[in-house]
Amino acid sequence: MITTPTALSRHHEAVQSEMRAAFPNVDLPIYDMARYALGWLDEQGGPASASGKGARAALTMLGAEAISDSPDALRRAAAGAAAVEIVHNFSLVHDDVQDGDIERRGRPTVWKIWGVAQAINTGDLMRELADAALRRALEHGASAESVIESVRRLNQATMLMIEGQYLDITFEQRTDVTVGEYLAMVERKTGAMMGVSLSIGATLAGASTEQAEALDRAGKRLGRCFQMRDDWLGIWADPNALGKPTDADIRRRKKSYPILYALDNAPSEARRELMDIYRPDLGDGGTDLPEAQVDWVHNLLGELGADEATDEAARAEYEAFHVELESAHPRAAAVGDLEALALFTLERDR
Amino acid sequence: MITTPTALSRHHEAVQSEMRAAFPNVDLPIYDMARYALGWLDEQGGPASASGKGARAALTMLGAEAISDSPDALRRAAAGAAAVEIVHNFSLVHDDVQDGDIERRGRPTVWKIWGVAQAINTGDLMRELADAALRRALEHGASAESVIESVRRLNQATMLMIEGQYLDITFEQRTDVTVGEYLAMVERKTGAMMGVSLSIGATLAGASTEQAEALDRAGKRLGRCFQMRDDWLGIWADPNALGKPTDADIRRRKKSYPILYALDNAPSEARRELMDIYRPDLGDGGTDLPEAQVDWVHNLLGELGADEATDEAARAEYEAFHVELESAHPRAAAVGDLEALALFTLERDR
Repeated sequence: MITTPTALSRHHEAVQSEMRAAFPNVDLPIYDMARYALGWLDEQGGPASASGKGARAALTMLGAEAISDSPDALRRAAAGAAAVEIVHNFSLVHDDVQDGDIERRGRPTVWKIWGVAQAINTGDLMRELADAALRRALEHGASAESVIESVRRLNQATMLMIEGQYLDITFEQRTDVTVGEYLAMVERKTGAMMGVSLSIGATLAGASTEQAEALDRAGKRLGRCFQMRDDWLGIWADPNALGKPTDADIRRRKKSYPILYALDNAPSEARRELMDIYRPDLGDGGTDLPEAQVDWVHNLLGELGADEATDEAARAEYEAFHVELESAHPRAAAVGDLEALALFTLERDR
Repeated sequence: MITTPTALSRHHEAVQSEMRAAFPNVDLPIYDMARYALGWLDEQGGPASASGKGARAALTMLGAEAISDSPDALRRAAAGAAAVEIVHNFSLVHDDVQDGDIERRGRPTVWKIWGVAQAINTGDLMRELADAALRRALEHGASAESVIESVRRLNQATMLMIEGQYLDITFEQRTDVTVGEYLAMVERKTGAMMGVSLSIGATLAGASTEQAEALDRAGKRLGRCFQMRDDWLGIWADPNALGKPTDADIRRRKKSYPILYALDNAPSEARRELMDIYRPDLGDGGTDLPEAQVDWVHNLLGELGADEATDEAARAEYEAFHVELESAHPRAAAVGDLEALALFTLERDR
């Protein structure tokens, strides 16, 4: 089992406290729906502890530490970290509606409990709360210019994320998606938010535009690495570590990187059979693939070396992350934590 | 027929041009879905002209003119006007999903054409485009402080609007909604965006906080007036002017102000019958009310004086608008247009 980097938990409390402070003092159940989505409350409004890993918040704090070790800079960055975590969770609430997913982090999704209409509302509200969180950096001494620049970065990254979600949904209706198109989608859907996590933390800590841009590129690479590893785990994970069976993504007919790699590299007959299995009308969200076909796909991927190819693709993003990170000229003291988080992204087993 | 105030069209082109400039140079169909929602494109991507009245944009420009007549101030305000118009249209895209409405401004709704998942995406994207529009005020010489203040105002008004939408949906499941609760919902769902229209225009034109706050309150009153008139027209409109038959809202079982007034004031037997008609399981979006019952409700409203009561409620908001407007100390030259727009809100026949 790979150990979780300490950077994931070090600033957890500071960021959670900024997130809570973004909520207005308004007593309406929709705010509790948002608190449920953030893992703070259970379905009945009782206390819960079901937050995500907080990877984006950790990246924001590390982005700040790459630039400055002043406590004030970190306090300002915590406001930015709260904002990216809330935006990430807003996107999950809407994603779950769009994908019809009924479970998230082991609990029913917001729409499953409160219906589609209120889930749309809850996501919309969280997007507003994220901006309220970010603006708190002003109270921690950030300049108006650096806050506007942070708002702009969050705004643009969120647009890219929505573009990625748009593409992801259209891909479900296609069987001719190339590996290149897939990576461009992943860079938007997952990479943009990881990029802005690093760059917004750096901006609030006083980075130059060049440093923030380099960190943004580094984060995008890390997002692609994250997704490649996710795709690898979706098929070849050790079920004891992941808590999901091996081949989960094959069973769900998910067109992840290994499948697109196989579609690109399979001999024509196997390719035809594979395309038939991944027909859009049976796509993600439809019925599970029968076990005999799951085995056939699993073996085909093995023959084609799709597991090594996926791992290599993840590793290439990991290397590119380092190149971009170096070009940001981060403080030497911050590099170790960033490298540990990147290595965890590449090698995690869950 | 009441004439449309010239203020509604005077700055139309300037605001539309700011709205267009908020779009990034990205060639993805989701941006065309947003352009469709704004009335610029038809379903196939051809040119269209199906925008709304632009009342919020006009209010923003009048809010600016209440403070300054400098062309620079109006240019900055046009960026704010573009932002509020885009937020308003974002909310309509999500509302149509939430209400299951298949038509808007005589055209199919976004979800009806592209599905619920992409309609959620399109609305989310438009919310981001609104912030991009607002930030363009910087390019027109607005200070970082005034833009942050405008972003904050838009952020808070959007939260109130979402709270209003939350309440509106919960009201559909209740038969005990009071007139007071209804007005508080309307102030959020409709008033907040009209309030921020006036105050954001004023802020970008250099208003003091006190002036902006007074204009915000004035706009909230105007929003309530607007909805009261809307509710009146939904039942007693001249069908030749409105393009909808009389009693449209009764037929749809919409729990608008006149119905809530009747529920508050009907004798107990009529009240029971009315509550039965407005049972949640048959609520808004269900089947149409049979014509015999439509007539019965229409006559009951007449006996109870619900038409005069609704008109009086609208008129009270109109009066309150004037009080708040005066406390903002607007430029004398701008008052005429504001009063004309308010009078149109109160007396419009469509």
